[in-house]
Amino acid sequence: MAHFLASELEALGAEVEQRPLGKQPGKEHLDLPPVVIARYGNDKNKRTILVYGHYDVQPALKDDGWATEPFELTVDDQGRMFGRGSTDDKGPVLGWLNVIEAHQKAGVELPVNLLCCFEGMEEYGSEGLEEFIQSESKKFFKDADAVCISDNYWLGTEKPCLTYGLRGCNYYSVSISGPAQDLHSGVFGGSTHEPMTDMVNILSKLVDPKGNILIPGIMDLVAPLTEEENSLYGKISYTMDNLHESLGSKTNIHATKERTLMARWRYPSLSIHGIEGAFSAPGAKTVIPAKVIGKFSIRTVPNMESDDVNKLVFDYIKAEFAKLNSKNTLDVWLQHDGKWWVASPKHWNFTAASKAVKQVFGVEPDMTREGGSIPVTLSFEQATGKNVLLLPMGSSTDAAHSVNEKLDKKNYIEGTKLLGAYLHYVAEEPAGEV
Amino acid sequence: MAHFLASELEALGAEVEQRPLGKQPGKEHLDLPPVVIARYGNDKNKRTILVYGHYDVQPALKDDGWATEPFELTVDDQGRMFGRGSTDDKGPVLGWLNVIEAHQKAGVELPVNLLCCFEGMEEYGSEGLEEFIQSESKKFFKDADAVCISDNYWLGTEKPCLTYGLRGCNYYSVSISGPAQDLHSGVFGGSTHEPMTDMVNILSKLVDPKGNILIPGIMDLVAPLTEEENSLYGKISYTMDNLHESLGSKTNIHATKERTLMARWRYPSLSIHGIEGAFSAPGAKTVIPAKVIGKFSIRTVPNMESDDVNKLVFDYIKAEFAKLNSKNTLDVWLQHDGKWWVASPKHWNFTAASKAVKQVFGVEPDMTREGGSIPVTLSFEQATGKNVLLLPMGSSTDAAHSVNEKLDKKNYIEGTKLLGAYLHYVAEEPAGEV
Repeated sequence: MAHFLASELEALGAEVEQRPLGKQPGKEHLDLPPVVIARYGNDKNKRTILVYGHYDVQPALKDDGWATEPFELTVDDQGRMFGRGSTDDKGPVLGWLNVIEAHQKAGVELPVNLLCCFEGMEEYGSEGLEEFIQSESKKFFKDADAVCISDNYWLGTEKPCLTYGLRGCNYYSVSISGPAQDLHSGVFGGSTHEPMTDMVNILSKLVDPKGNILIPGIMDLVAPLTEEENSLYGKISYTMDNLHESLGSKTNIHATKERTLMARWRYPSLSIHGIEGAFSAPGAKTVIPAKVIGKFSIRTVPNMESDDVNKLVFDYIKAEFAKLNSKNTLDVWLQHDGKWWVASPKHWNFTAASKAVKQVFGVEPDMTREGGSIPVTLSFEQATGKNVLLLPMGSSTDAAHSVNEKLDKKNYIEGTKLLGAYLHYVAEEPAGEV
Repeated sequence: MAHFLASELEALGAEVEQRPLGKQPGKEHLDLPPVVIARYGNDKNKRTILVYGHYDVQPALKDDGWATEPFELTVDDQGRMFGRGSTDDKGPVLGWLNVIEAHQKAGVELPVNLLCCFEGMEEYGSEGLEEFIQSESKKFFKDADAVCISDNYWLGTEKPCLTYGLRGCNYYSVSISGPAQDLHSGVFGGSTHEPMTDMVNILSKLVDPKGNILIPGIMDLVAPLTEEENSLYGKISYTMDNLHESLGSKTNIHATKERTLMARWRYPSLSIHGIEGAFSAPGAKTVIPAKVIGKFSIRTVPNMESDDVNKLVFDYIKAEFAKLNSKNTLDVWLQHDGKWWVASPKHWNFTAASKAVKQVFGVEPDMTREGGSIPVTLSFEQATGKNVLLLPMGSSTDAAHSVNEKLDKKNYIEGTKLLGAYLHYVAEEPAGEV
């Protein structure tokens, strides 16, 4: 994918490099995929916009439940383009390339200089990118006047949004091991401590069915809700029906859209993702797994600092495990973390994008935050010191990370126009509040 | 294997048939492997002993961690015969054939008529065999005076045992579903009920870390421990070191061998095997699984009736789920069950075997039960109405179902002698208590 992307950019006349990121940490026999960087235009009289995307995707197997081959783009009669990465994030990356190509074909000069940074490890915690961004902050990225990232989604399906905040994510593993190898449950059931028994006990103590995090002290780290912030949620174009449509069910925890959006944007959440090492196939297997690794993550918000969260998590899990009086062995560690981020939505970068939405879609965008993490957002903000804007292309029904991921053809085409229009307004917008 | 086994039996002069068992349920393009039945001897003045074994084995790949090719018999300098099926159950099956051959070579008439029933689906739940046994109960099996099965193991490595009891197994699935598809935990974490949260809650309510089953009423179904039974455990040749060696760890729940053996043989246990539908691979995936299926089983003992156990399990899980106030959907069902079995160890079938052990090994055998299930045991008992004896050949260190399965040459040779001596004592033993 890196080679393909680089060659596409070269064909458009950009200066392109594939920068190696070294070996994958913990898997030193593997090279990290390169980051593809490109410059298009070098005019000192123009603003320079740094755009980011990623060419890697989540894993996908047809057997996971896909209706079509996940790695063959399949367009249905409603214009839904199905395929892994269609919306996350290959579609938006191609959007930027389409913008350059469209200007060339129309004979219109691009009104800004464009710096591209497209990585290949986003779905695996952007390994190696943080260091790269830091090391290039005064080199490749030094001319950037603002940053634009198209790697998230509209709140619903009709109205675009500009995103100025993200939750962070601390991803944890907790391992419990006992016997030296998997055991026959008939022979040993009842006479040995079973790691799975301890595991479901520990995992059951993390969060209640209403989504309340049970780890003491976590909620004390959360910034209080101000009157001003509280007043913003009512205006957002979002309904409980939108939520039900996205879920495909009525399993909402909260009754109102306001409380639902707060839960997504400004409060932490804890999800249990699964267990490695236990029996996970269809059918029956009478095994006592010898070592199991539970996976869960906490979505973080202002003002939760990762180290503080880690300490609360580790201390609590160790204390709860001690209460079990099990002879099994516990270990718990942070797999990766990414900090939350909140930007100023009054910056010219946002004003330009807002005008572009109005131009292409005829509506004012919603100003939103996101529940998910895009850790590079914070990295770019810190490395460049410039405003970062999230300008999504896909809609809420795109099923990123899930089976049957898609991007609507309309979102792809109008979204490409939006990215192009944004660059024109960016070129015109006066420098105001930063 | 069926053809090989049949031809070996024919060469020994047995009347042999390979009986088809129809198609494999759920895989109707596959024929079930035939059951090989044979009669050796038809003298009305002799007792007729029905022996059972299986010629199929567990899967094995060298890559699983075998030190030798799993399907090439490799004997090391300690006389350990490594190979898949060496102890489970090809070695014991060949033991019966060796007995016939040895009698022929020695010019000694076999003192009993032998009926052989060797199947090829034991490791896959003996598919098709139950119906076959029922249908042949008044035909091929009608002359059987007793049954002998050599398909289990000594408790340790030095002392043979006769086995007169097995635990049963009720295997359950509990599914919890909510959203229509897997979700991104950043986007939806905190605003939807998560099936995994409910699942670990439900699973954590089944059994405590000390192995105590938390489902009310289950323990009330267990036959009380009598003084007489209680006095048996101290005599058994077994130590906590044996347990630690088998576990490869010191994660024993009970402090004494007596309580450990009771936990394995005469009390129920509940093991949680794993969860289908959740993230189970190495690494990190920020998914909210939409539907997860927890798997657990209860090892059953006298006097637990499957229907009673099922009702307690279903009612309890439904009640506990209702307490969660979740909008997710629960389902719970029995995947399969196999009843426990206990025979009379005072029957002449056991007395004969006991004398044979004394003759060949110079010791009294341990009278044992087993924690695992061998469902055909009960099938043969019910179909023939006769006493069933489990007479193992292999030892506790044979690693059946695991990598580096082996049978010690000593166990194979002395075990063959044991099977032969057993037939002689069977011929002599007066009919006493049945």
